[in-house]
This record gives sequence, C-alpha cells and structure tokens, in this order.
Amino acid sequence: MESAHGRFNARKAVVLLSGGLDSTTAAAVALAEGYVLCALSFDYGQRHSRELESARAVARHLGAASHIVIPIDLRLIGGSALTDEIDVPLDRSEKDISANIPVTYVPARNTVFLSLALAYAEVIGAQDIFIGVSQVDYSGYPDCRRDFIDAFERLANLATKAAVEGVARFRVHTPLINFTKAQTIRRGIELGVDYSLTWSCYQGNEMACGRCDSCKLRLAGFHAAGIEDPLQYAS
Amino acid sequence: MESAHGRFNARKAVVLLSGGLDSTTAAAVALAEGYVLCALSFDYGQRHSRELESARAVARHLGAASHIVIPIDLRLIGGSALTDEIDVPLDRSEKDISANIPVTYVPARNTVFLSLALAYAEVIGAQDIFIGVSQVDYSGYPDCRRDFIDAFERLANLATKAAVEGVARFRVHTPLINFTKAQTIRRGIELGVDYSLTWSCYQGNEMACGRCDSCKLRLAGFHAAGIEDPLQYAS
Repeated sequence: MESAHGRFNARKAVVLLSGGLDSTTAAAVALAEGYVLCALSFDYGQRHSRELESARAVARHLGAASHIVIPIDLRLIGGSALTDEIDVPLDRSEKDISANIPVTYVPARNTVFLSLALAYAEVIGAQDIFIGVSQVDYSGYPDCRRDFIDAFERLANLATKAAVEGVARFRVHTPLINFTKAQTIRRGIELGVDYSLTWSCYQGNEMACGRCDSCKLRLAGFHAAGIEDPLQYAS
Repeated sequence: MESAHGRFNARKAVVLLSGGLDSTTAAAVALAEGYVLCALSFDYGQRHSRELESARAVARHLGAASHIVIPIDLRLIGGSALTDEIDVPLDRSEKDISANIPVTYVPARNTVFLSLALAYAEVIGAQDIFIGVSQVDYSGYPDCRRDFIDAFERLANLATKAAVEGVARFRVHTPLINFTKAQTIRRGIELGVDYSLTWSCYQGNEMACGRCDSCKLRLAGFHAAGIEDPLQYAS
C-alpha cells in the first residue's frame, strides 16, 4: 500500500493512551512489534488530570513519535460517575465489581475514542490502531469485547476515503483482549514497562486510593502476577 | 421496552443537526413521524459559526425539546479544507463535484458524530437517531452511504450497555438516503420547512457565496425542484 500511494505507512500506529496500565501495555506491545507510536489521548472531562499527566509520561517513556490530546467534553452528554457528580463506588469485592456494568461506564466511550483514532489515523497515514481492551477483565463494559472491535473495524473500512479508495485497510489491534490483568502486567514487565508512570485510580488525589474498582482490579492483578505494584496507595 | 424499564422512550429521537438543508429536512421528517426532537450539533472547528446559528434557529423552528452543541476540535486532527487552512474549491461543475471525494471531506466525520449521538441517545433514553445523509447526492463522501450506516447500527447494538442488556435497540434513520437534493427540498417544503433558516455555504461570509460545491449543489437542487431558494447569494 505504501508503494502505490506513498501516504500510508505500514509502520505507523495510532495508540489510544489513557495513561492507565492497560493502554500503556498495549502501547508497549505495539512498540515491540515494530510500530512507530502516534499516541492519542482524550481530555473528556475526567474528574482529574492525573491520568493525562501519566499518559504524557508514558508517551515519553515509550519514545512515541507524537502525542496529541483531544479535548472532548463528555460531561455535556453526562451519564457516568467518571464525568458526572455521581460518587465512585469504593471497597467493592471483585465479585461485585464484575457482577454488573458499573456507574463508571461512560456511554459509548470506546466507540467515540476509536472514531477519533480512525480520523487521526486517516489523516496521518496510519492503518493500524491499538487499544488496550480485555474481554477477560473488562469490568462489564460492552465496548471492550472483540466482537465490538470487529464491528468497529468493519465500520472503519466503510467509513473512510482511504479504505473506500483501496489505499488503506484499517485494523484495530487488541493485544490484551484475552489477557487477565495479571497476564497484562507480566507482559508489560517483560517489555520493560515502568508501571510507576501509569495511573489507574478513579479518584483524583495525590496518591491512588486503593479502594475504587480500578485500584482494586489493579492491585489484584499485581498480586496474582506475583509482582509488586510500584505505585503508592493511600490505603 | 418502555414498559419493562421505563428509561427508554420510543418517541424521543436524537437528531444530528448541522443547520444545513439535509439535516434540517431529516429533522422535519422525524418530527412528522411523531418523534420528540433532541437535537445535537457539533462545534468542530468549522471555519465559521454561521452554520451553528442556523442549527439553533432550526431547532427552535421545529420545536426541538432540547438542543446541545458539543465542542470537538477536529482541527487538532486536521486533514480537511473545512477545518484547515486549505482553500475551499469554487466554481466547479456538478460533474467535477461528483467525480472525486473532495478536499472538504472531514476524515471519519460521520463516524465521530454518530458515536457521540449514540452516547447521547443512551444517556437520555432514546433509541432512534436521525441523520440527513443521501447516497444519491453525497458528494463522494463514503460515510453517507447506507452500508456504512448499517455497519454503524450493528456497532451501536454491540457497543452500549443499554443494547447489551436488552433494554434498547438502536436504530439509525436515514430518511433522505435515496433522495436527490431536489427530492429532499420538495419533501421539506411539504413538511413546512423554512429553508431561509438553513445554511449550506462552506465559506463564512455574510451571504452564501453561490460558488462552493455546497452552494452549487443546493442551488442545482432548488432549480431541479422548481422552487426558489429563499437564501440570498453574493453571486
């Protein structure tokens, strides 16, 4: 595809980077597979900007060729404890966490993020998009399953000038799709990821709370992997 | 669906409203079909805000129950004459206009807009989304074809908590999909649409230019419909 049109580059990948453990590991996998990383983050009205600082630190750590942060105020739409004034649930058991789609679900978030990743990919001439979703460990979010990703990939190849003109064939890579959190962490450690740079906590305090669903799943993952989490926790 | 869960309302529809002729007509069709209109517009770094003023005027004209405008700065992504500093082509023939996907193509725009419409629909409890695309008269945009819309609809029903839980079944309505511009205008006139409120011009001047592709297609549509365009043109 490169030779025919010049514009599309088989080595560039758009990597969705939240600054969390999963997206960081997915980015490290893309790098290990030989891709040049073009990182993409969103300032979507999260309650805190700690996550975005981590995304910036991780992009530097992994030697990303570029990193853009798109502001998209999902608070205007509402409907989630991550963007609204709903309390983040604390101290839930892993069983409770996985039983239902939680209030921290942001409606259609990955659909919105992948759409913007696709737009960005088309503009910069990348055909490959990496996203760190896992259907094993997905906290009940429907947009973390591979059938959703397959449907998005199909859409992407109908949606864009580049695909319709046969210049590009978009692919959405999900290297963690069948990984538990522990497997993700082990893979990241193998690849030299510095997890002290990442941030998972839903709360915006100085230290990770250790009590929200995201902290609980992260800590359980490190525990199961037999690795110590380099982050400091408030409790 | 309403009786089982209460939250989803069979009469509410999210209508993508740019303030142009097509989205205004699609909204008028939704209203005529008995939907309560929840209008959604985007401030995506268009070169001018004239379009958004028209969207607001149209939402009022059609008695929309709500209207939100989401800022999403696609200029950060780039790649289009509508958002970048590329010149909008002027004085092209209809044949030239339809021959290629034009520089005014915004990468993955309808994918991004439909994703946000889906998020909004899920939050407000609507299952129906209206978009004024036409595959007859689509200026060569791949994301105006029904096969793209079908792929999006499929994605929507995999992407969302409401669909996965069986509470909602999202549908994307394309009432103009097989309409020429002239047919769209005739349908709008039948429904009482005031086209003087709408705006199609790609340039942001006081009066529509009459020379860009969008003005040309609009004028040709009114001409073919045998109806006078109530807008004033600079040339």
